Amino acid sequence: MQFFRILAAVVVIGAGLCVVISADGQTQMRKPAPLVRIAELEIDSGQVAAYKNALSAEIATSVREEPGVLMLYAVSVKGHPSEVRILETYRDQAAYEAHLQSPHFKKYKETTRGMVKSLKLVETEPIMLAGK
Amino acid sequence: MQFFRILAAVVVIGAGLCVVISADGQTQMRKPAPLVRIAELEIDSGQVAAYKNALSAEIATSVREEPGVLMLYAVSVKGHPSEVRILETYRDQAAYEAHLQSPHFKKYKETTRGMVKSLKLVETEPIMLAGK
Repeated sequence: MQFFRILAAVVVIGAGLCVVISADGQTQMRKPAPLVRIAELEIDSGQVAAYKNALSAEIATSVREEPGVLMLYAVSVKGHPSEVRILETYRDQAAYEAHLQSPHFKKYKETTRGMVKSLKLVETEPIMLAGK
Repeated sequence: MQFFRILAAVVVIGAGLCVVISADGQTQMRKPAPLVRIAELEIDSGQVAAYKNALSAEIATSVREEPGVLMLYAVSVKGHPSEVRILETYRDQAAYEAHLQSPHFKKYKETTRGMVKSLKLVETEPIMLAGK
């Protein structure tokens, strides 16, 4: 939590390393850059409400119980409730792989198998990650 | 900053309202749901480095100076450095509109005008936003 208390901006330099700039613009420290992914899903239009419930439960548990799951933002495209995007940030690759093995993630995958018409996973390279 | 110190999960309920759950799972408070947007850009392949520099400067200034700019994550699609996605979170619509009027945003738009081949703005509705 201290990380977020002092955080003004995270400047990513090259692959896998970043510099954290404190709120006073002075303090800097190097730490591994987090893993950012975007999931793009199309949900069966008759099952959107059930899908959102299952996804919300999975997200709440993941962020609460897994130290390496830093952020999960689930949104739908405005005007297209069956088009879902999930913005995902993990501490590192190991945290992401641990998340895939968690019982709540496996339960979510099993529950939503018949609801998801398509799933595209967009892997990314960080350019600049900044948050309060 | 107190918001992020206690934050375990933000559960969005309906349009524009959410419940914040504290780390101990007890405290809850209603507050407006933030605005989440995704920008999808294609950058001229010969100007990617210059574009990244301009974008990084704009992001650092926005998050540092604007209280309503909560998060700006810029990434490129892995293996496609000219395909850029920006994951954006603002406190509310007013904060987003203020951001558009800021001198650093206007400078970024002017500097990068000849670098951006296409720009798609994806407006979203929150389903579930959770972060540490």
